[in-house]
Amino acid sequence: MKFNNRNVFISNKATIGKNVRIGDDTTIYDNVIIDDDSIISNNCIIGEPLSDYYDDTNYENPITRIGKSSLIRSHNILYAGSTFGDNFSTGHRVTIREYSNFGVHCRIGTISDIQGYSSFGNYCWLHSNVHVGQKSTLGDFVFLYPYVVLTNDPTPPSNICIGPTIGDYSQVAVFSVILPGVKIGRHCLVGAGSTVAKDVEDYQLVLGMPAKNIKDVREIKSRESGEAQYPWPFRFDRGMPWENSGYDKWKDEQ
Amino acid sequence: MKFNNRNVFISNKATIGKNVRIGDDTTIYDNVIIDDDSIISNNCIIGEPLSDYYDDTNYENPITRIGKSSLIRSHNILYAGSTFGDNFSTGHRVTIREYSNFGVHCRIGTISDIQGYSSFGNYCWLHSNVHVGQKSTLGDFVFLYPYVVLTNDPTPPSNICIGPTIGDYSQVAVFSVILPGVKIGRHCLVGAGSTVAKDVEDYQLVLGMPAKNIKDVREIKSRESGEAQYPWPFRFDRGMPWENSGYDKWKDEQ
Amino acid sequence: MKFNNRNVFISNKATIGKNVRIGDDTTIYDNVIIDDDSIISNNCIIGEPLSDYYDDTNYENPITRIGKSSLIRSHNILYAGSTFGDNFSTGHRVTIREYSNFGVHCRIGTISDIQGYSSFGNYCWLHSNVHVGQKSTLGDFVFLYPYVVLTNDPTPPSNICIGPTIGDYSQVAVFSVILPGVKIGRHCLVGAGSTVAKDVEDYQLVLGMPAKNIKDVREIKSRESGEAQYPWPFRFDRGMPWENSGYDKWKDEQ
Repeated sequence: MKFNNRNVFISNKATIGKNVRIGDDTTIYDNVIIDDDSIISNNCIIGEPLSDYYDDTNYENPITRIGKSSLIRSHNILYAGSTFGDNFSTGHRVTIREYSNFGVHCRIGTISDIQGYSSFGNYCWLHSNVHVGQKSTLGDFVFLYPYVVLTNDPTPPSNICIGPTIGDYSQVAVFSVILPGVKIGRHCLVGAGSTVAKDVEDYQLVLGMPAKNIKDVREIKSRESGEAQYPWPFRFDRGMPWENSGYDKWKDEQ
Repeated sequence: MKFNNRNVFISNKATIGKNVRIGDDTTIYDNVIIDDDSIISNNCIIGEPLSDYYDDTNYENPITRIGKSSLIRSHNILYAGSTFGDNFSTGHRVTIREYSNFGVHCRIGTISDIQGYSSFGNYCWLHSNVHVGQKSTLGDFVFLYPYVVLTNDPTPPSNICIGPTIGDYSQVAVFSVILPGVKIGRHCLVGAGSTVAKDVEDYQLVLGMPAKNIKDVREIKSRESGEAQYPWPFRFDRGMPWENSGYDKWKDEQ
Repeated sequence: MKFNNRNVFISNKATIGKNVRIGDDTTIYDNVIIDDDSIISNNCIIGEPLSDYYDDTNYENPITRIGKSSLIRSHNILYAGSTFGDNFSTGHRVTIREYSNFGVHCRIGTISDIQGYSSFGNYCWLHSNVHVGQKSTLGDFVFLYPYVVLTNDPTPPSNICIGPTIGDYSQVAVFSVILPGVKIGRHCLVGAGSTVAKDVEDYQLVLGMPAKNIKDVREIKSRESGEAQYPWPFRFDRGMPWENSGYDKWKDEQ
């Protein structure tokens, strides 16, 4: 239903792989490379030109690369100069600005707004309406839940731009803000509605405004089963590389 | 100005009622039914296919039904498999995923993101930028204000999905989060910026992070008039079924 | 790349200045005036008709005016009846409703949602995902950071609509809510995640839920340099009218 080649515009400077499907009302600008077996759904803009384009008559669009088997849902705006690893997928109305680099198997939720100049590891999952300020750095398997905001200006307004760093496997729950330059370790959990103003050690649960250390995440038990809930890779594997082997075995093989 | 039949695509498997207007740049996919006297404004996608569509060559779009006299403003994405009662209306850029069922006279505000598999009573009004996680249940006359978030995963990430339940006439103010599985009674008021982690009894005002019981809503007086402000149906009737009769009389007739 | 006149619709009742560029898939409705040297990028709707349009066969679109040298990025919806001063610029997917009046050099970030009937001074910068309720009043050089919300209904739901007022040079940090009718003075700073329920005096730093007075902003020192950070015009000039002269000199000339 979506791939009728109706009102589709593809630059002759774009490179489209094998078995790529491009939806109606979608525009692919100069110097975009889309790898094999990917789907760009309808009403998308891929390779959005940077601001200089509006003034510079010699403007050349930087290269944008979308890895293979990716699925970009409708109404995405992906700027030129960003790279998306294989199996990248998005919800609707995602905006990702220039020089954002994603590992493989990342997922970005509906209406999320990635401001650019940031780095994402493998298997980062951002849910709906997440805002990532410039110069943020995420490790692997970092999950950000709805309405999480990563900031970068300690004394607004200023020309300082120091984004947060979030370590592998850490989870940031809904409506939390990570303040500029804060470093969150590995396997951390930030509770809902927190404002994180200080660095967080590995395996810490933090909560509140400002966020305080509550306990080690390994002490969090399920109310139902009484079993430990964290580190989460031991109990959650949907879509993860250890889905068939178990985390222990997969980890040993890395 | 909006109904020039420019770049409009309507599936020949869609059923369009009498006196329906469809805006420019709008797409209506398979198995959508639009009842009489409704308006689908410009740049909308109605009957968005579910994820299976991308892989399943035998995919058939589930039925989507929009009741009569509805007004869908521009840039909405309404997934297939959802049903919208009569007099449904939306702001701009609303995304509503599959198997969301709405009673009559519901309103959904600009940029709101309804994740699907949820149930809404009659006269639910969601303002701008509300996020409703899957498996949420709302009664009648529930109002959610801007940036309210309903969540469903108690130990993220997990495969557990237990949405909140919100009773008739309850109001959730701006920037509040309702945590997974929480049950909010009837005629409650959740104050701005609250994180609701425990069930709320009928007629309670709760506030804070975590939200605490403050008082019975019937004790809230207007600063100006000194009069009781809740239950609100006694003082507010715009767009309500008791608009001409008064709430008492309407209630008696139910 | 963007200006190929593909699927562009311009009302013959619109007035387009010299050297204006209009992007593909953009629609300009009746009685829109776009001044010289402005850019309306792709997929925009300019002069969106008000609600009456859907029912009133004699509807006439009120005048919309976009000042010279403005840059409207893609996917904006700007309602009829609003006026935008010279050098207005926006991110993507901005929605601005009717009777919003902006001074010169204002900037509105991606996904922001301006509900109309509001007034903005000169050089107001709203970052991503800001929500401005109706009847809000902002002075000059007011900066609102991501996910700031301005509200207007003290006892929801009601027919009362009293928006906040924010004085010149004040800054509202990420995730803060300004409650209905609150007056914030000049040169104030609202810290991240605050709920502002009471009026704020000039030069106050407020923080928390509810926001409390913390200190005079002139006492805030840089952690690095030890220097005073506020009033910010003495240390920040990018894009400001005192960019070449310094704030003191510019101020003297006003």
